[in-house]
Amino acid sequence: RTLRIGLIPGDGIGREVIPAGRKVLESLPSSLNLKFSFVDLDAGFGTFQKTGTALPDKTVDTLKKECDGALFGAVSSPSTKVAGYSSPIVALRKKLDLYANVRPVRTTVGSSRGNPIDLVTVRENTEDLYVKEERTIEGPDGKVAEAIKRISERASFRIATIAGEIALSRQAIRDAAPGTSTRTQPMVTITHKSNVLSQTDGLFRETARKALSAEKFSSIHVEEQIVDSMVYKLFRQPEYYDVIVAPNLYGDILSDGAAALVGSLGLVPSANVGDNFAIGEPCHGSAPDIEGLGISNPIATFRSVALMLEFLGEANAAAKIYTAVDGNLDDGKFLTPDMGGKATTQQVLDDVLKRL
Amino acid sequence: RTLRIGLIPGDGIGREVIPAGRKVLESLPSSLNLKFSFVDLDAGFGTFQKTGTALPDKTVDTLKKECDGALFGAVSSPSTKVAGYSSPIVALRKKLDLYANVRPVRTTVGSSRGNPIDLVTVRENTEDLYVKEERTIEGPDGKVAEAIKRISERASFRIATIAGEIALSRQAIRDAAPGTSTRTQPMVTITHKSNVLSQTDGLFRETARKALSAEKFSSIHVEEQIVDSMVYKLFRQPEYYDVIVAPNLYGDILSDGAAALVGSLGLVPSANVGDNFAIGEPCHGSAPDIEGLGISNPIATFRSVALMLEFLGEANAAAKIYTAVDGNLDDGKFLTPDMGGKATTQQVLDDVLKRL
Ligand SMILES: CC(C)[C@H](C(=O)O)[C@@H](O)C(=O)O
Ligand SMILES: CC(C)[C@H](C(=O)O)[C@@H](O)C(=O)O
Repeated sequence: RTLRIGLIPGDGIGREVIPAGRKVLESLPSSLNLKFSFVDLDAGFGTFQKTGTALPDKTVDTLKKECDGALFGAVSSPSTKVAGYSSPIVALRKKLDLYANVRPVRTTVGSSRGNPIDLVTVRENTEDLYVKEERTIEGPDGKVAEAIKRISERASFRIATIAGEIALSRQAIRDAAPGTSTRTQPMVTITHKSNVLSQTDGLFRETARKALSAEKFSSIHVEEQIVDSMVYKLFRQPEYYDVIVAPNLYGDILSDGAAALVGSLGLVPSANVGDNFAIGEPCHGSAPDIEGLGISNPIATFRSVALMLEFLGEANAAAKIYTAVDGNLDDGKFLTPDMGGKATTQQVLDDVLKRL
Repeated sequence: RTLRIGLIPGDGIGREVIPAGRKVLESLPSSLNLKFSFVDLDAGFGTFQKTGTALPDKTVDTLKKECDGALFGAVSSPSTKVAGYSSPIVALRKKLDLYANVRPVRTTVGSSRGNPIDLVTVRENTEDLYVKEERTIEGPDGKVAEAIKRISERASFRIATIAGEIALSRQAIRDAAPGTSTRTQPMVTITHKSNVLSQTDGLFRETARKALSAEKFSSIHVEEQIVDSMVYKLFRQPEYYDVIVAPNLYGDILSDGAAALVGSLGLVPSANVGDNFAIGEPCHGSAPDIEGLGISNPIATFRSVALMLEFLGEANAAAKIYTAVDGNLDDGKFLTPDMGGKATTQQVLDDVLKRL
């Protein structure tokens, strides 16, 4: 099988980690019978400055027509408002209907906390306040701006469904490796603020409950948490959680909070997942402060490559990458500065390639 | 001076901690020349079940006409949607125009983290998604619900202004007690998500910057953080922050996150502050699981009593309470179960009264 992968480095260190991710794909063992072809695509603030658009039509078209999946680096946000600029990753998620943003975090050697953490946030990726329908009026007391938060039954149902499926497949992995986890039952925690937003978040809550009450999910323990309590609990007992499903904005916030629990953002991957497409995307930003120094941590990208492969049905190839990355981290000899090490991006890449 | 205080215990353990808070006020040393009179007022889910409204007009009227301040306990949220019910504290904040929700957290003995944390979140308390303007339509793919997020220049300006004032008064307290803190300059961090919500959160950001650029705030270091990064940073380096100012919903989430950093929610106070009124409110909820056991932690309420007094211009009385509470915690002999102790609410109260 040959997979065609779009490469969208974006800005800043995106241009350092995405080429490293490509190398990992190219170096997968031939026994996997998996080949890759690549196409380079533009997006980001740099692209906006050159062409007037942060997400050229050509990028979207090529992804739609030619590609099976993609890797996205990071984009810089302008520090003051720039007319006409808006985030290309947010637009891409919507245009390709990549309705789930999946962000697993696990305790690793670099982590400062005691108990093992192994959870995934499954964030709705197409609506909520990210519909970006805003307006501003000039009132008697100055400006008043409004934004629409939109929650649909359809999007809530499918995000809860994929959260349920992810919970089942995580349990299957645990069952296949007895002794690696004390968790015996999959769990999904529905996050919302329906005590204030009874209609929008109320719809999310009810619909998620309905989706997760399907026969195929009968082994799943379903709980819910109000978003503010969820952040509190996430800090106090992160090891308790398995799969957390949330509307777009809460998911954005919760997944950054979860990343903080396991050390550097440079470790945390994500995948933007639709029915037939997946984009791997490291959770870190474009990090202009270290751009060009060759010391950006490529681990989040490697894991995002693996996550993309999982959602493209290539779990074996993904497992190879996870194992190689864990080997690198456990060994601890080649770590980038964000992890307290002195290694360069290239050295981490070489070490991971050796372990593939 | 005699202050008239409305007592609104609400539901659950609110009915245990508010009477304890009243006792603290009644027991303040007479040298302070401060007297109190009290009026009991209804609100909450229990009130809703009895009367059909969670916030009787009489409660609002009495607060407006007779009272200088109030103490609010907690309210239970129904576990499923109940027609006609909506949170009385959210309504109260709006009806009394208590536009700032102030939540200080400090490291105490009970905390599990190393570095000292001493920060306060200043949350806008009257608008954002809390305007609760929602509607639901039946579309071709099922229900679609929308909520309005409203951000005004006026509310953003005044919340940033009070955040600046709080930053200055915190610095004055530090300056008056040299050696207690390494912070030499007040700092305010503006939190928003203007990279996605350029109009609403953009307005908050710009207006807060404008408010904080006033001459009187020239000693303040002003920074900003996107809300997801803010949660990440709050977990990674909480000791860095001083005053965090945020729109309503982000403030709700951030203040719970901050509370998690310093141990039990049972320690964290808040005040709902308007131009001439303040309501002290512990951050914890109604805790139905421990209701009636007499073991609820009254510390958050005592600190909320003190915070209310500060905003009513009685900083000396407030300081007495803070010192008594810190004495109780440092001593560690009378701690409630949430703090790992075995003391009852009454024992903690008695211990704090002795220290007043
Ligand atoms: C850059 C920003 C628009 C984006 C988001 O809010 O989704 C980022 O925070 C993320 O989580 O991928
Ligand atoms: C109970 C709820 C409506 C309330 C809020 O969201 O403001 C609570 O979380 C708080 O922070 O006081």
